Amino acid sequence: MNAIILSIGDELVLGQTVDTNSAWISQQLASVGCDIVAHMTVGDDQHAVEQAIEESVGRCDTLIISGGIGPTEDDLTRQALAAVMKTPLELHPAWIDHMRTIFTKLGREMPESNKIQAMIPRGATIIWNHAGTAAGIDAPFQSGDQKTTCRVFVMPGVPREMKAMFARDVLPHISQLTGGAAIVSRTLHTFGLGESTVAERLGELMKRGRNPSVGTTVAGGLVSLRVNARFASSEEATRQAGISREACQVAMGDLIFGEDADTLALVVSRLLKAGKSADASSAAGEARVLTVATAESCTGGLLAKLLTDIPGSSAYFTQGWVTYTNKSKYERLGVNEEVINVYGAVSEPVVDAMAKNARRLARSDFALSISGVAGPDGGSATKPVGTVCIGLAYATPGSAARGDARFAESTTAVKTFQLHGDREMVRLRASFMALTMLRYHLLNKSLPF
Amino acid sequence: MNAIILSIGDELVLGQTVDTNSAWISQQLASVGCDIVAHMTVGDDQHAVEQAIEESVGRCDTLIISGGIGPTEDDLTRQALAAVMKTPLELHPAWIDHMRTIFTKLGREMPESNKIQAMIPRGATIIWNHAGTAAGIDAPFQSGDQKTTCRVFVMPGVPREMKAMFARDVLPHISQLTGGAAIVSRTLHTFGLGESTVAERLGELMKRGRNPSVGTTVAGGLVSLRVNARFASSEEATRQAGISREACQVAMGDLIFGEDADTLALVVSRLLKAGKSADASSAAGEARVLTVATAESCTGGLLAKLLTDIPGSSAYFTQGWVTYTNKSKYERLGVNEEVINVYGAVSEPVVDAMAKNARRLARSDFALSISGVAGPDGGSATKPVGTVCIGLAYATPGSAARGDARFAESTTAVKTFQLHGDREMVRLRASFMALTMLRYHLLNKSLPF
Repeated sequence: MNAIILSIGDELVLGQTVDTNSAWISQQLASVGCDIVAHMTVGDDQHAVEQAIEESVGRCDTLIISGGIGPTEDDLTRQALAAVMKTPLELHPAWIDHMRTIFTKLGREMPESNKIQAMIPRGATIIWNHAGTAAGIDAPFQSGDQKTTCRVFVMPGVPREMKAMFARDVLPHISQLTGGAAIVSRTLHTFGLGESTVAERLGELMKRGRNPSVGTTVAGGLVSLRVNARFASSEEATRQAGISREACQVAMGDLIFGEDADTLALVVSRLLKAGKSADASSAAGEARVLTVATAESCTGGLLAKLLTDIPGSSAYFTQGWVTYTNKSKYERLGVNEEVINVYGAVSEPVVDAMAKNARRLARSDFALSISGVAGPDGGSATKPVGTVCIGLAYATPGSAARGDARFAESTTAVKTFQLHGDREMVRLRASFMALTMLRYHLLNKSLPF
Repeated sequence: MNAIILSIGDELVLGQTVDTNSAWISQQLASVGCDIVAHMTVGDDQHAVEQAIEESVGRCDTLIISGGIGPTEDDLTRQALAAVMKTPLELHPAWIDHMRTIFTKLGREMPESNKIQAMIPRGATIIWNHAGTAAGIDAPFQSGDQKTTCRVFVMPGVPREMKAMFARDVLPHISQLTGGAAIVSRTLHTFGLGESTVAERLGELMKRGRNPSVGTTVAGGLVSLRVNARFASSEEATRQAGISREACQVAMGDLIFGEDADTLALVVSRLLKAGKSADASSAAGEARVLTVATAESCTGGLLAKLLTDIPGSSAYFTQGWVTYTNKSKYERLGVNEEVINVYGAVSEPVVDAMAKNARRLARSDFALSISGVAGPDGGSATKPVGTVCIGLAYATPGSAARGDARFAESTTAVKTFQLHGDREMVRLRASFMALTMLRYHLLNKSLPF
């Protein structure tokens, strides 16, 4: 059981609107075990739509079309479908009545142009639209020699109307046709290693033809693993996806920081909220939320922004400094100008002092500091663009003052990284690396790079 | 001259990632007068990729492929293309050397698996990738009977790498092939008004069928106007686009803050660098770069991050505070706890004090402050989610001490806004509104909302 998804609209093919319908429909189809052969997009051109339908019906069991069934002259999907089916369009009186009711409620006369929306190819059935005037079409396609059969569903292009119609009246049919088979997907996120190194670690798991399959995707500075399990039942697919996920976990270890919608900041926030820490506070048996402060130079607030993306972040994030100039590093965080002169603003002694002083001023459990060369300018032979120093200050074990680790002396871990990418990517990777340093600290493990 | 855009990746066909590449490529192609026949998407399956290439090369002059040229086993685009071209893959030594250099810089050995990235079909040319290890491919396709010819370009699927490669090495070829006829597009950005209000202001300019056409797009908190002029020559298209752009400018006035790749922060940075200001410093005839500091609560560093997105931002951005807790507002920026208790942390007196004190401590020309309810929780009847107070501190005219406006007394402009959207959108709009307040101040105009 497989499907092709066809989207119709000039705004799509011209790139003025990003097609989000196809991705959504794909996810829905996959969830009931329907394979997706391809997505196609053509403009509001009857010949192009006819050609796309003709090519598709021979290559799939189900063709899912969205768009081109509005009331205007550039909506030509129903005409194209009728032409390919070699059958005339017929008026569907019940839908005419329904549209009249809609317009009466709006206190308006139904424009003549809307009548076309009640026309469907002979032999097809109307799919009710509970949110608009564009009725859907459920058409059984059969070639003259009866060799090719395909079930064609036509839906509106407006995402809200399409989704309601698909969920209510299309998906149940498809689910029945696939007879219970399902694809279950899991996405696991890693940060810090390149895609090829991740692939090497996964080894046999990524072998082509394996089921569940394991693939990698690079996006937003992360390398993510996708596990897709395709089995006869949803239970078996879920079980098998779970087994492969475990295998990925074994291969990658703590480099996998989260799944699906998890972000690095979210995962760190969970660890802070759990109060799991190897520092003085947990030794003292406290179970409060741990807090973090930030002191940023090249990332210019991005690290704090990531930490506060999460609702309720005030529980663990107290405050942050963006000390962009050398002067502000001294005035705000007491970083000795002498230290900056000797070692440079991008140096381990500087981030060491930034983290220590930020932690002391904020009286937080942790402070993260970043100073680097984000580029495109400012690089040198010894500190090229991408050189980033990161500091993590935490309570020196056993030094808690007044029984509160937040008043304890600081110990710092500092490290220099060579990150690649453009300014935006270096800033993002630097922030991710800082979060990763804190994450490993909270896991009580040492950083693997 | 026309093109088909083919995107390759399981994550796309399964709907786990929305394909944004195709829309972007379409816009670029349209800009040089290249028609787009269709978009297609298939998974990481060599047979499916071969079939898609085979079908496409017969239907278009140019086939633009993105995705499937990474170093892992599920990257099969190069193999599929070679199969359709009936030609072997050949090693490209220069690219191997280039990849080795990249890995050497990262202090790592090049994994064996990356070698495949230097293989291209015989007869094809490599397209240099300045941002990654996936080289592109420029292949002239010709069928055995020479009836079908098509120029095939293969690019990485990673949007950043794809865009850089396309702009630099693909678009110029296509532009040459379209030989004159052109669509010239201009994008004008506005912030602060809703889409329907913008459309009302534009009136007749948005009429269907008009050439140049004017449309609106909502994205990333902005409402942008697209002017598309399609004419027989690039000169005429450019001229006509310019006339319609002027008409948009007249209709929208200063609400249009920039064009194309302009961001609000970039536009503000230009004004700061130009030193144009109605404050004491310009009155004194100084021509130095004006500086700004930030004091943020609900935006958590986002405003500072936007200001430092721009290379060379240290010229105008000095430092920022993320005072997330009430305590930090007091300890860092001297916001009286009494004021917070009486008016609440989200109030005009609080952002007034935040801005004033940030400006004084940073000795900057301006300081922007933000405190609001980003949600999803924390709203109340009087201050629902989306309530945001913004402050702008600037030198009181005529009060410059020691001849330097940065030491002058502060005057503040404070305002409360009701912004809509989810947490991410409220934070983004709040930051944009702060930049807009500064922008209008620098333009010496009053805020239109």
